[in-house]
Amino acid sequence: MMKHLNIASIPGDGVGKEVVPEAERVLKTIAKIHGGLSFTFTHFPYSCEYYLEHGEMMPENGLDQLKPFDALFLGAVGNQELVPDHISLWGLLIKIRREFEQVINIRPAKQIKGVESPLANPNEFDLLVVRENSEGEYSSVGGTLYKGEDEIAIQNGVFSRKASERAMRYAFDLARKRNKHVTSATKSNGIVYSMPFWDKVFQEVASEHPDIDTESQHIDALAAFFVTAPEKFDVIVGSNLFGDILTDIGAGIMGSIGIAPAANINVNGKYPSMFEPVHGSAPDIVGKRVANPIGQLWTAKMMLDHFGEEELGKVLLDTIENITSDGFLTPDIGGKHSTKQVTDELIKRLKA
Amino acid sequence: MMKHLNIASIPGDGVGKEVVPEAERVLKTIAKIHGGLSFTFTHFPYSCEYYLEHGEMMPENGLDQLKPFDALFLGAVGNQELVPDHISLWGLLIKIRREFEQVINIRPAKQIKGVESPLANPNEFDLLVVRENSEGEYSSVGGTLYKGEDEIAIQNGVFSRKASERAMRYAFDLARKRNKHVTSATKSNGIVYSMPFWDKVFQEVASEHPDIDTESQHIDALAAFFVTAPEKFDVIVGSNLFGDILTDIGAGIMGSIGIAPAANINVNGKYPSMFEPVHGSAPDIVGKRVANPIGQLWTAKMMLDHFGEEELGKVLLDTIENITSDGFLTPDIGGKHSTKQVTDELIKRLKA
Ligand SMILES: CC(C)[C@H](C(=O)O)[C@@H](O)C(=O)O
Ligand SMILES: CC(C)[C@H](C(=O)O)[C@@H](O)C(=O)O
Repeated sequence: MMKHLNIASIPGDGVGKEVVPEAERVLKTIAKIHGGLSFTFTHFPYSCEYYLEHGEMMPENGLDQLKPFDALFLGAVGNQELVPDHISLWGLLIKIRREFEQVINIRPAKQIKGVESPLANPNEFDLLVVRENSEGEYSSVGGTLYKGEDEIAIQNGVFSRKASERAMRYAFDLARKRNKHVTSATKSNGIVYSMPFWDKVFQEVASEHPDIDTESQHIDALAAFFVTAPEKFDVIVGSNLFGDILTDIGAGIMGSIGIAPAANINVNGKYPSMFEPVHGSAPDIVGKRVANPIGQLWTAKMMLDHFGEEELGKVLLDTIENITSDGFLTPDIGGKHSTKQVTDELIKRLKA
Repeated sequence: MMKHLNIASIPGDGVGKEVVPEAERVLKTIAKIHGGLSFTFTHFPYSCEYYLEHGEMMPENGLDQLKPFDALFLGAVGNQELVPDHISLWGLLIKIRREFEQVINIRPAKQIKGVESPLANPNEFDLLVVRENSEGEYSSVGGTLYKGEDEIAIQNGVFSRKASERAMRYAFDLARKRNKHVTSATKSNGIVYSMPFWDKVFQEVASEHPDIDTESQHIDALAAFFVTAPEKFDVIVGSNLFGDILTDIGAGIMGSIGIAPAANINVNGKYPSMFEPVHGSAPDIVGKRVANPIGQLWTAKMMLDHFGEEELGKVLLDTIENITSDGFLTPDIGGKHSTKQVTDELIKRLKA
């Protein structure tokens, strides 16, 4: 039985354009080895450069073009020197997340062999953040009032039971396949409407899962625990903003944001899911051939898992750890290898 | 010339009641050594226990009682097992911050000799977070709508030019006495009303301070940099929530939240400022005599600085580092000493 996957590839900006092609090479290699799997990558140039030319991040029918694909494989979006972030991100990345109802963002963080953590004792932490990806602090409701010294900006955070519950249930389901522990990120001591509401919903969902241990931690303490005792966590569920912050710390304790992967999951099957690493476009290292491909490669593994190819996904991550522990590292994680050298070595070993 | 300071002491909950008396002993010792300085501490029992007895965190005229003092010296507030956090905190801690217009929260983080950082290479980081302390994400504007599956909570973040600018100017003033570098914590790529506004105000204030280097970092990346390269920062200015999160990470990289100090500053001179460590009431270790007094002691140093006694403040912090580097440590930072043993040793050395 042949499985064919039609992927829309959006390299985006900066290093996105350097790492996406590398990850595509790897996915094609894996498909060939497998035999029963194949990929087609169709490229879309949506990016800040596209904006400069066309005055928009993607064409009006951009989403219609992307919709038929099995998944989207994205590199990085944003380059403040060309386009303000809130325009580039809301015109492409966040637009896709929202319109394609990619309501869950999953981001693992674990110690990778051969990659030095900034922590003195990382204790083989292995955690998974489930981030609510559709609302919360990232709402487009708000505005400004008055000019000059009286000017104020109001930003509404919007928290629905539906979206909060959905993220929490997703977290509990994942915890069941892992170490049966869910931590909820809150801040109900300081943020007195949305967060007590979030806590209430969490308690209800928790009570339906008596087999899973739970706890709530305020985001400030939790952020610190990610540094002092990350090994204590299994699955963490958080709002859009809290999930965002925690996963960057997760990337930090792994040793580099360049290796952290992510998946934006559409759970109702109406639209494709999107796979994009945590890192940004890193304009400072563009063109130097040193972009770390691991974030994009590990993201490719999450895409394989998503399509039921967990075995291949495991082979890919194991082989990544295989080359990192042998010192095939880009400069951001203390190595001297180029993007291409790392991928070449990975492909060589995958074939072997 | 005699300087007399009338301090309102609010030990609060849990370990607050264990560390505040120790810090008072130390302050009295320092005053005696100095000769020209004296303290009176007047105790107020406002706490969760007070709430259980009286149905409120402090009496109706509580603020009037506290207002005449030169400063407030607070331990910790909150104990979820007795009173929900959003009631205890908003009825006491946050109420005081707001009503006494303590609009700036200052929190240093630096490597303390003899206290092991969880970071492999802390590189002698020494940073200072200036947190906007009066509005932002911690607003009491919002509410919930509908019941059952359609329930939603709305939380308004309120950002005024006045308060944002004030925090930023405070940060620039402090940076001028330090390493002349200010980092602004933003999230304008995801939070599209309040944060672009914050960025705009920051750019304006920055342009008035050409002698200070500036940069803006998104809170997710910034949180990760606090782990991977904290030595790169000097003064960081952030909103109420972002300042809160960053300072807990700051405490985390120092080795324990038990040692981190804070000051809530009233800048218009109408009300007393409040000095309170970053840590909470830590119900899990109450009564074990192991609460780390350093957070409260370092907070006492910030109070000395505030009253122009920078020299005494320096002596106090130097002596703290003196005993920590000789191994007088409580269990949270890897030692075996009790709260009292640490303070006794500190007092002995201060006298010497
Ligand atoms: C207890 C809580 C409301 C408080 C805050 O978030 O301000 C605390 O975390 C702090 O940082 O002082
Ligand atoms: C670029 C930005 C809007 C985005 C976010 O905050 O969602 C990024 O930080 C991420 O985590 O994917």
